[in-house]
Amino acid sequence: MNRLPLVDAHCHGVATGPVGREDLELWCTEASVPPPVGTSYLDGQLGFALRRWCAPVIGAQPGAPVEVYLERRAAIGAAEASRRLLAACGLGALLVDTGLPDDVDLGDLGAAAGAPAREVVRLERVAERVAATGVSAAGFADAYAEALGTAVTRAVAVKSILAYRYGLDIDPARPGPAEVTAAAGEWLRTPGARLTDPVLLRHLLWCGVDTGLPVQLHTGFGDRDVPLARSDPALLQPFCAAVEPTGTPLVLLHCYPYHRQAGWLALVYPHVYLDVGLTITHLGARADAVLAEFFELAPVGKVLYASDAYLLPELYLIGAAQFRHSFGRLLGGWVDDGALTGADARRVASMVGADNARRLYRLD
Amino acid sequence: MNRLPLVDAHCHGVATGPVGREDLELWCTEASVPPPVGTSYLDGQLGFALRRWCAPVIGAQPGAPVEVYLERRAAIGAAEASRRLLAACGLGALLVDTGLPDDVDLGDLGAAAGAPAREVVRLERVAERVAATGVSAAGFADAYAEALGTAVTRAVAVKSILAYRYGLDIDPARPGPAEVTAAAGEWLRTPGARLTDPVLLRHLLWCGVDTGLPVQLHTGFGDRDVPLARSDPALLQPFCAAVEPTGTPLVLLHCYPYHRQAGWLALVYPHVYLDVGLTITHLGARADAVLAEFFELAPVGKVLYASDAYLLPELYLIGAAQFRHSFGRLLGGWVDDGALTGADARRVASMVGADNARRLYRLD
Amino acid sequence: MNRLPLVDAHCHGVATGPVGREDLELWCTEASVPPPVGTSYLDGQLGFALRRWCAPVIGAQPGAPVEVYLERRAAIGAAEASRRLLAACGLGALLVDTGLPDDVDLGDLGAAAGAPAREVVRLERVAERVAATGVSAAGFADAYAEALGTAVTRAVAVKSILAYRYGLDIDPARPGPAEVTAAAGEWLRTPGARLTDPVLLRHLLWCGVDTGLPVQLHTGFGDRDVPLARSDPALLQPFCAAVEPTGTPLVLLHCYPYHRQAGWLALVYPHVYLDVGLTITHLGARADAVLAEFFELAPVGKVLYASDAYLLPELYLIGAAQFRHSFGRLLGGWVDDGALTGADARRVASMVGADNARRLYRLD
Repeated sequence: MNRLPLVDAHCHGVATGPVGREDLELWCTEASVPPPVGTSYLDGQLGFALRRWCAPVIGAQPGAPVEVYLERRAAIGAAEASRRLLAACGLGALLVDTGLPDDVDLGDLGAAAGAPAREVVRLERVAERVAATGVSAAGFADAYAEALGTAVTRAVAVKSILAYRYGLDIDPARPGPAEVTAAAGEWLRTPGARLTDPVLLRHLLWCGVDTGLPVQLHTGFGDRDVPLARSDPALLQPFCAAVEPTGTPLVLLHCYPYHRQAGWLALVYPHVYLDVGLTITHLGARADAVLAEFFELAPVGKVLYASDAYLLPELYLIGAAQFRHSFGRLLGGWVDDGALTGADARRVASMVGADNARRLYRLD
Repeated sequence: MNRLPLVDAHCHGVATGPVGREDLELWCTEASVPPPVGTSYLDGQLGFALRRWCAPVIGAQPGAPVEVYLERRAAIGAAEASRRLLAACGLGALLVDTGLPDDVDLGDLGAAAGAPAREVVRLERVAERVAATGVSAAGFADAYAEALGTAVTRAVAVKSILAYRYGLDIDPARPGPAEVTAAAGEWLRTPGARLTDPVLLRHLLWCGVDTGLPVQLHTGFGDRDVPLARSDPALLQPFCAAVEPTGTPLVLLHCYPYHRQAGWLALVYPHVYLDVGLTITHLGARADAVLAEFFELAPVGKVLYASDAYLLPELYLIGAAQFRHSFGRLLGGWVDDGALTGADARRVASMVGADNARRLYRLD
Repeated sequence: MNRLPLVDAHCHGVATGPVGREDLELWCTEASVPPPVGTSYLDGQLGFALRRWCAPVIGAQPGAPVEVYLERRAAIGAAEASRRLLAACGLGALLVDTGLPDDVDLGDLGAAAGAPAREVVRLERVAERVAATGVSAAGFADAYAEALGTAVTRAVAVKSILAYRYGLDIDPARPGPAEVTAAAGEWLRTPGARLTDPVLLRHLLWCGVDTGLPVQLHTGFGDRDVPLARSDPALLQPFCAAVEPTGTPLVLLHCYPYHRQAGWLALVYPHVYLDVGLTITHLGARADAVLAEFFELAPVGKVLYASDAYLLPELYLIGAAQFRHSFGRLLGGWVDDGALTGADARRVASMVGADNARRLYRLD
């Protein structure tokens, strides 16, 4: 398990500069403002996991206080810390969502991680780029199709943040051309406006389905922009049914706290997959328990490792180290109970850690 | 615990012919189409549980590969496999939903299982039989009442699949005669039409309540026909309140992943009961954890064992063997922690395994 | 852990008279009618926890049958039983919701518990008192503001039972004066009418926010008056967002079975806190597992101990004893796994048991 090469099937770019206390605090949480007096975002599972898994890599004791951690990190320098942390992940490949405002150099990131970095194209980001060209409402659909076609040339997947921009409770049908033009006209009227129109978002999603690449969808928790109750992947059931005839795979990202509902979708829809990123990183020591819940209904060929790491190289390592530890404990417990043979456990670890992603995203 | 005679309080008929790889794969899942290339429905908790609990019964090693399992099963013959698997369940009684299209011979099934098999009448199936007689809209209500009265003569319960046909988010009130006639007219217009009208479905449900027999309701997961988000038993709260004055018990089947909500209903409504069928069978090694969740709020006198087995005799045994193992581990853990006395643990096992069902369904 | 002084951050008054079998049964459940024949509300986690934690305090064996427990309790007398049970809690302070119809003497309760008892003012109760003065619709808003101002003079928090009276799916905006007057007129028309109007309830809630004191909100399960599906704290997300600029803290009480959703709110909104009362008391031996779920996303500085005890002194002790035991086991397990240092575990226990409440409610 400890040597299992992982495919990080959903992550983001990494910041390379020095990291101060305030950066660490805010990059280790889904909160977007400082914590109330007397509390710290690092006093929670993610913070404990950081001190556990990352401290030894930068030369501190496991569980070292945050202050000691930051001192030691500064002493070796941000570049060296980043190099060590990413190398310690033992990744076989990284699939990187390039849709956040930061520029990500996939070559640099891959080199630092010692593994190929492949692109995941964010559907909404491409739309924003098209809007910035001054396209007309009538020309939007064609311009978007063309831009997306170009964007995915070397990509392994596309990604939707519908959950953030509207919610997953959408009409599952592909909107008609006139609807798309009208919605585009409304959106383009205000340059730089946030794209939140459900008709346009659905149009983007269906264009993503048209690419035939796996479509990653944010589901479940995230930062406060997500309307949590409307991010339950069960709300996507009609959309899953509508997409099935196309054969395009859908990958439900994160899922927590609705991962049991997601597990059922992965069971009954052959094209639906799950991704444990963000969830296992943020849940730290609770990853054992929550991974177990992911594997209640979902077939083991349908669940994929990911970190959803962003900015901090620590987050890549927390994901990888906690997953190896927790999934190992979980599988070991099942073997001890007689539920699984040792050979099955090794096969399952390999599938979830890497093989499922290699097959689904055609990485080889 | 290992000798505890179980009442399987909700199950279906068993197929008696030979079982091939494809049959096994599709009968061991709630999916209805083949799995994607590179995956198997048997690579999951239910498949692992099958290889664990059923292999020794047909003369293979626990955890034997599926191919070996099927070879060995074919070698002893379907009839002998079925006989051994059902006998190994150690059942005291079976309550069989006869509403699926297959004919079930309760006498044969009971003989194979070595225990009396009693009937559960599916409300929607009776309506379909009435419709097939060419009844008029105006005559439907009377004809249904009469047919249901006849159907339940020897039954111990009725069952509703409202969750499949509409969802649990219904108006709780009994519909009036004119509404029923209008809805029946609409439905009967197209011979063989699927019964999905919420007014008619509610009417059937209230007719079921009128029988005074326990009404079993599908809640929670199932095959893809279920609209998952609308199968949350919490949505039945107004209906539970409306039924309470009648004294007719309601049994929430399956419940997962909404079993905690169901547990609360079983706590606050004296006529509401829970059934762990389907859930523990499909969850395999996770049955320990999920049974524990069933017993957070629900009084132990309100929870009933069942397998929800269908077609494969293996499913009867997986339910029974996993329940005995997991509930035993769960209760043993509580005894070890000092939460429960050993005498209480034995009493609780007996209640949930059989006594609650005997009392509720008046089996003696 | 065993000597950790706890702040019981949400509880109610205690009954001082003798306790019979029927009282015990109904005060140990959220059900409001007797259980069906053959079952007992004491046959469940809360009943097991009562026999475990309370029996030794009144001189019976842990796990003694209920009959023995009641005999022994009667033998020492209700006053002595109450004194022993409350003293055994080891409380540092109690925050008491005085909004139930019973009169609570905070001095007496505090003396019995050996710790200061501070008041939590129920918003709806104050409105009912104002209504009883014969106030006019036009005068309601001013009269309520004045009455609330007086009521909170010595209070440490206010409390809303919006979940019981309507549900948490409210328009988050503060209603305008004309709306409030119209809604008040409607309500006041029928003297003694139950306050269920969502406009008035929202008005009360915003008046509570205006006090600047922490606002405790019932969320999740309770007795059958709660519409469970509409008590999911995730439905409060828009209200959390609307309140944030005011700086007034919101404390989500109970939360179960939606505590994971609540944990996310406590992560992303700096002014949102969680309280484990009612949940750990009713869940008994399952408190370990459910506390673990509370601590998946929520920072440890955001979670507070409480019992939500009411009437029975046993409920105070079950909460305190089960929390100490279960949280101790949980933290010990994390230390054993290497997830947490022993020093961190002690610090976390102290924060959740008492320090967070002292800071949030300004108890010192």
